[in-house]
Amino acid sequence: MALIVHKYGGTSMGSTERIRNVAKRVAKWARAGHQMVVVPSAMSGETNRLLGLAKELSPGATTPELQRELDMIASTGEQVSVGLLAIALQAEGMQAVSYAGWQVPILTDDSYTKARIQSIDDKRVRCDLEAGKVVIITGFQGIDDNGHITTLGRGGSDTSAVAVAAAMKADECLIYTDVDGVYTTDPRIVAEARRLHTISFEEMLEMASLGSKVLQIRSVEFAGKYRVPLRVLSSFTPWDIDIAEEAKSGTLITFEEDEKMEQAVVSGIAFNRDEAKVSLLGVPDKPGIAYQILGPVAEANIDVDVIIQNVGHDGKTDFSFTVHRNDYQRTMDLLKAEVIPKAGGAQLSGDPKICKVSIVGIGMRSHVGVASRMFSALSDEGINIQMITTSEIKTSVVIDEKYMELAVRALHRTFDLDQPPA
Amino acid sequence: MALIVHKYGGTSMGSTERIRNVAKRVAKWARAGHQMVVVPSAMSGETNRLLGLAKELSPGATTPELQRELDMIASTGEQVSVGLLAIALQAEGMQAVSYAGWQVPILTDDSYTKARIQSIDDKRVRCDLEAGKVVIITGFQGIDDNGHITTLGRGGSDTSAVAVAAAMKADECLIYTDVDGVYTTDPRIVAEARRLHTISFEEMLEMASLGSKVLQIRSVEFAGKYRVPLRVLSSFTPWDIDIAEEAKSGTLITFEEDEKMEQAVVSGIAFNRDEAKVSLLGVPDKPGIAYQILGPVAEANIDVDVIIQNVGHDGKTDFSFTVHRNDYQRTMDLLKAEVIPKAGGAQLSGDPKICKVSIVGIGMRSHVGVASRMFSALSDEGINIQMITTSEIKTSVVIDEKYMELAVRALHRTFDLDQPPA
Repeated sequence: MALIVHKYGGTSMGSTERIRNVAKRVAKWARAGHQMVVVPSAMSGETNRLLGLAKELSPGATTPELQRELDMIASTGEQVSVGLLAIALQAEGMQAVSYAGWQVPILTDDSYTKARIQSIDDKRVRCDLEAGKVVIITGFQGIDDNGHITTLGRGGSDTSAVAVAAAMKADECLIYTDVDGVYTTDPRIVAEARRLHTISFEEMLEMASLGSKVLQIRSVEFAGKYRVPLRVLSSFTPWDIDIAEEAKSGTLITFEEDEKMEQAVVSGIAFNRDEAKVSLLGVPDKPGIAYQILGPVAEANIDVDVIIQNVGHDGKTDFSFTVHRNDYQRTMDLLKAEVIPKAGGAQLSGDPKICKVSIVGIGMRSHVGVASRMFSALSDEGINIQMITTSEIKTSVVIDEKYMELAVRALHRTFDLDQPPA
Repeated sequence: MALIVHKYGGTSMGSTERIRNVAKRVAKWARAGHQMVVVPSAMSGETNRLLGLAKELSPGATTPELQRELDMIASTGEQVSVGLLAIALQAEGMQAVSYAGWQVPILTDDSYTKARIQSIDDKRVRCDLEAGKVVIITGFQGIDDNGHITTLGRGGSDTSAVAVAAAMKADECLIYTDVDGVYTTDPRIVAEARRLHTISFEEMLEMASLGSKVLQIRSVEFAGKYRVPLRVLSSFTPWDIDIAEEAKSGTLITFEEDEKMEQAVVSGIAFNRDEAKVSLLGVPDKPGIAYQILGPVAEANIDVDVIIQNVGHDGKTDFSFTVHRNDYQRTMDLLKAEVIPKAGGAQLSGDPKICKVSIVGIGMRSHVGVASRMFSALSDEGINIQMITTSEIKTSVVIDEKYMELAVRALHRTFDLDQPPA
């Protein structure tokens, strides 16, 4: 008997018929002797509907008071889901009880609309599990110290599920989703993309942060911090699939590096097409310049991704970074107004049509020359590299957007990702 | 400056456009210097939509576990409403904050789907009011001792509003609704029906229990118990109507009997067409017989309205009561199976096509002959009275359903209700 956490996305909860199927699947696991905690998302479309209503009324300004109310409203989507799933499980003859985040409670900070989980009290849930009940907990939300409802931001239900699994010391957290696992790259770009049976936590973290939409990055961070075994698997298999087969399906995110030792150097190719590049050329090469440039950007709540500053010469240096394409114009305007006047003759340039392509692999740590193989493959395709950044287990390049598919396919081939590991 | 509670129904909250109008109206009251607490219902149709989803999944059985989940689901409708109204008020430049019942908290018993309010802690709300905020509280719901969400039953938002007004010692509780006050009778039946400027609490209680749909009866009971001045008024007046005029509109439910001294003996005519009559003729006239008959009915959760037992003779008596028409067949079957075999040769008869018509008036206390004027008026119209019950301030008769409109019109005329009070 194990303690298992299931997480179901909005598509799986999209209708009463689908909720019934989720209930049958959960009941199958419970009847197999497992203690079950389930974290479902809101029914698909519901969060957008609720926030759409709020948007029709909102004054545009983004005050904490407004965001508090957005959380009050948006959190109801998951509350409906947990109640419906509990009823569906009861209809299957199971004992089931649902809890909103505040009832568990799941304590968060007070950053409305993007709160972070601080602690989870598992007493109530454990008591129900021991009484033989399936416990269903709202994803996406919690309660702050002052008793206000908070939400964790879009996709936060993944994080809730992993956090609950961590708090309960669950044996495994299964994330049911509309893909059947983590792939070497997006199969829509590369037909030969292959599902990975396992991926290391560090690789998954890079894949998530580099644009793979399979898991919310914070859920992967949580899994890493608390070493929660995490499995991504398909919600589209029939609910009555053999449980032993189901338990091995999808992709397991693992902490056992040994398993990877003999595997490929590069595990996957990630990419992000919605980026824009901004450069300040000839800024004074002196302490504080990075903060002087990025301070106003951060204050305007613009997320910066890649940041590059190369060595300077003649007392000047070039400074570049990337932002989401939607923030490009705002960023350019901001720099023009607030930074350029004080930046000693620096010139501003930018390009909203770039993309980022990354190779990710824990094997890169111990294999030299991986980055140069990447650059060579891109060069062979005549693709100019505009920016490069690296970390221990990934190398990212910024290139012209129009070469994205070409680059991903070339790299997938170069690193033999279409071949199963030896 | 006064402390005012506003309650808005689902129709008033039916769209973002209407919510914006509610916000403008509340803002007008707040800007006039009043401390404002607002209790809105769920957007019209929302509670039905949510319970409809639950019904698609529910096993039919009505267990406390199922009802707990129904409350979890249904309570979200009001939570969305309060958040949207808070945002609309903020857009009007007001400070506003919303609370779910559990956040106030509004403590109830644990009778899911029909809980009763036990206490309201007003500290948090008072603190916000003193900080100059409009406070918006979910209607229809609370929290039990074990931290489970409860709901108060359909129409419970009226009760929430009055209970909050009582707890806060509000100066007045204004119930905005789709009628512009309490009428001498239903204007759809009697064209001459007249709006009452005031009605006593006791009369309102009788009117509510006798089928007037203006206010939920429990809200009137609450108002009476805590002497909350209650006003029923129209939500269809323009939001920018002069506040002094608005404050005098509708019908005030009052505790000052003096105001009524010179007024009409009868204040209104109530009626209820969805009733059915059940009689047991020739039951043994001995102690315990009423319980023997009604015990099984109560256990089957069938609500009984009028109960009549006249003096017996020859050791036998006749026992009659009325139930909602939907419960008629179930009641007859139950009596046939469980009561008749033990009732010493009693005969069962019933009629699902009856109605109840009542005259209500605090003046009846001190005026003899009111009931006989009622009977005489009905007799003049050739209407046979099947059952009679009276209380201190009302007289009800059960008659054939087909005479209902005729009876209501005749009584409205007989007691001069089409004339304004002297």
